[in-house]
Formats: sequence, C-alpha cells, structure tokens
Amino acid sequence: MLGILGGMGPMATVDFMRKLVEATPAGRDQDHPGALVLQASDIPDRTRAILDGGPDPLPAMLAGLRRLEAAGATRIAIPCNTAHHWHGALQARTALPILHIVDAVAGKLLDRGYRGGPIGVLATTGTLQAGIYTGRLARHGFTCVAPVDQAAVMRAIRLVKAGGVAEAGATLRDQARGLIAAGCRQVVLACTEIPLALPASDEAFGVALLDATQALAEACVAGTPARLAA
Amino acid sequence: MLGILGGMGPMATVDFMRKLVEATPAGRDQDHPGALVLQASDIPDRTRAILDGGPDPLPAMLAGLRRLEAAGATRIAIPCNTAHHWHGALQARTALPILHIVDAVAGKLLDRGYRGGPIGVLATTGTLQAGIYTGRLARHGFTCVAPVDQAAVMRAIRLVKAGGVAEAGATLRDQARGLIAAGCRQVVLACTEIPLALPASDEAFGVALLDATQALAEACVAGTPARLAA
Repeated sequence: MLGILGGMGPMATVDFMRKLVEATPAGRDQDHPGALVLQASDIPDRTRAILDGGPDPLPAMLAGLRRLEAAGATRIAIPCNTAHHWHGALQARTALPILHIVDAVAGKLLDRGYRGGPIGVLATTGTLQAGIYTGRLARHGFTCVAPVDQAAVMRAIRLVKAGGVAEAGATLRDQARGLIAAGCRQVVLACTEIPLALPASDEAFGVALLDATQALAEACVAGTPARLAA
Repeated sequence: MLGILGGMGPMATVDFMRKLVEATPAGRDQDHPGALVLQASDIPDRTRAILDGGPDPLPAMLAGLRRLEAAGATRIAIPCNTAHHWHGALQARTALPILHIVDAVAGKLLDRGYRGGPIGVLATTGTLQAGIYTGRLARHGFTCVAPVDQAAVMRAIRLVKAGGVAEAGATLRDQARGLIAAGCRQVVLACTEIPLALPASDEAFGVALLDATQALAEACVAGTPARLAA
C-alpha cells in the first residue's frame, strides 16, 4: 500500500491525492489501489531549515514515516519538492522504497521527447539552494534555470499556503513567461503549492508547463503492481 | 489526530479532505491539525450489502480502523454516508470516538434555523433502506423525504464513481428540484459522491442544498482541541 507523507502543505497533499485518483483507471471504488495519507502538518518549514538554520524537519518527517510504516505502508511518496532535500536521510532509515519526485519529473521530460537543454524551475528558494533538481536533472543532460525574481516566487508560494491563490497565480505566470523567454522549452512547477495557483493546464502556456505533483502521481500509479496494471 | 476511514469512494475522500483543509483557519502549513487518511478502496459496496446480501463490508472497515489506530489516530471520521449503517458495530469495537455524519448534518440544520419539518435526502438506496438518516433526524423533529426517482439517483451515484460527473449532475439536479417542489426546505446531499456532481453552491438552489461532506468536515474542525480553537 502506498504511504503518502503529506501535509507540506495540506492543500498540496489534497491536490496530489486528486491527481493520484484521476491517474488511476477505475470504474468503481474497488478498482483503486489503497493508499494511506498522513497530513503531517507539524513538520517544520523546509525552506527555513535549508536557508536560515530553522528547526530541522527530519525528526518530524521520520515520525510521520514511522506512522505510515506502522499502518502497513509498503512504499512512500512525498508530495513536497523541498522535503526531498531529506530524501536520502529518510531512505537510509527505512526499508520501504521512497519515490523521488525529481526522477518522476525527469521521466516525464524524457517521455515528452526532451533530451537535455535548459529547463525552468519554479520552486522554493530552499529547493533551488539545496540543488534538489540540479543534480538529478543533470544526469539526463538538462540544465536548471532559476526565475529572474526568485524572491517573488517564494512570496507567491507562501501566499498560496495562506489562501491567496489569485495574486500568487499572477506572479507565477510572470516568472514562468520570463523562463520561456530565456529559452526554456519546459518550466517545471517544482513546488506542490504552485499548481494550486498556476495549473499546468493554463492555456497561455500550451504544453510548456510540467507539473511535478502530476508527475509524481503518475509515477505512483505506474509503479502499482495491481490488477489494474493489465 | 483525526483518522479518516476513506476510499468510499476515493474521490469523495479527496473532496472531504479539501473541505477539511478549507474549513481550518490557517495561514501556514503548521496551523493545520494533523490527519491520517486511509483510502481503503477494498471495502465492499455498502449499498449492495444492505440491499442484496452482497459481501459484508464490516471486516474491511474494521481492518482499516485498526490501521488508523496503529498509526496513532485518536478519533475517526468516515466520509461515506452509507458506511454509517455500520457505525454502531465499528464504535462497539474501538475506544476511539467515531463522529456520526448524520449528527453533523442535524447540527447544521439547527444552525440554519430549522426546527423540524420535511427534509429531502439524496442518498444511496442503501442509506435510505437502512434508515441511516431517518432515526437520527427524527430526534430533532425532521422527517426524511426520498426523491421521486430513487433508481435514477442511485444510477447517478454509480456514474460519479465511474467519472460521469456531468450526466450525473443533471439527474441529481432534477431530483433535488422535485424534493423542493414537494415542500422540502432543505435537501441533504447525503452521499459523498453527490457534491462531486451537484455542489451545494449550485446557484440555482440558493441555500436549499446541505452538503453532508461539508457538515462532517466542519464538525471535525469544531471538535479539534487545537491551538486554533482560540
């Protein structure tokens, strides 16, 4: 059973669950694989921990992982990009496989026919500073490009967490446009709050936006060894 | 920590989680209370069990409850109206309090100023036959009125589970109109699939629709003894 270490933030986890259900081919309840979701909203701010030496989120993430293990999860997904800074530390402490959101994104870029080149990354400042996307995308020849006004992106992400979706959407749209103007053929929505304000389906962008939440959901479904795989 | 015995169906559980997050006053992730959600989609069809002697869903519901207990849940909500037929049987087998969705609906009817009278109930045939709403609403002087074409409502509910939201919405709207024409001042959306196709905010109905999913979410938030209660 898939265990979802969520709550970072809570609405982003709801968005991930919706995408997971939608990505599952099903005609009735019983066609869906089970899942167990922890809204572990007590996990300290990931970006503050990376940038400012804020409280370490690892102990709370580990406690959440233990709850999911206790309840019978057999593999783990984490619908928070910045939390993947601790992916290695968590993986070292559990026998359960933990999917990596950047691997899901890389798979999707390859599926779309890209073989290297500049990729825009709309993410928290924590995700960018920690290089969560840089290394894993570089393996496939992709180079990560940060937006011109990263501070504005970070403000928009905090605004989404506080419910200010419309204002955040305008900012994110501007920064995504800037990345495309700078030569990026794909812009990854690399923070799970971002598609709440700027959906990848935004028609102004055609297929230039790649939703990391959606990529992770599809990777979870693809990895389901259920009767539905047939 | 709130444990949610969900998956009946999976998208209805996502809808419940969204309403739970939205009902929580919060400006950042850490303001939300934690929650643990089981998408226990292997639970047999509740209506078939009530009407046709189909497989008993109680063992699978109980297994789900045990998972939530193991993971540290301290109270339980079940975002499926028909599943409440087994509320008493589940409550007898756990020390954790299990909220009752009909109590949440009754509270909401009283909040809206109703003191008895006919209430329309759009629900599964299982919910109606088992009298899940009848007894608990009667305590407050409300009488339950079933729609003219209950078979159409049941078909619409199954259609929502299979993704046929638009077609289901038209049917449900017709039946809701019929209940209002028959003198019901409120129509309860008493199956968690229904608001996916006919949201309580549907402007054709003003405030005549009462969303049981929303009522349960608000009851969960009201019952949260968190720092936010202040």
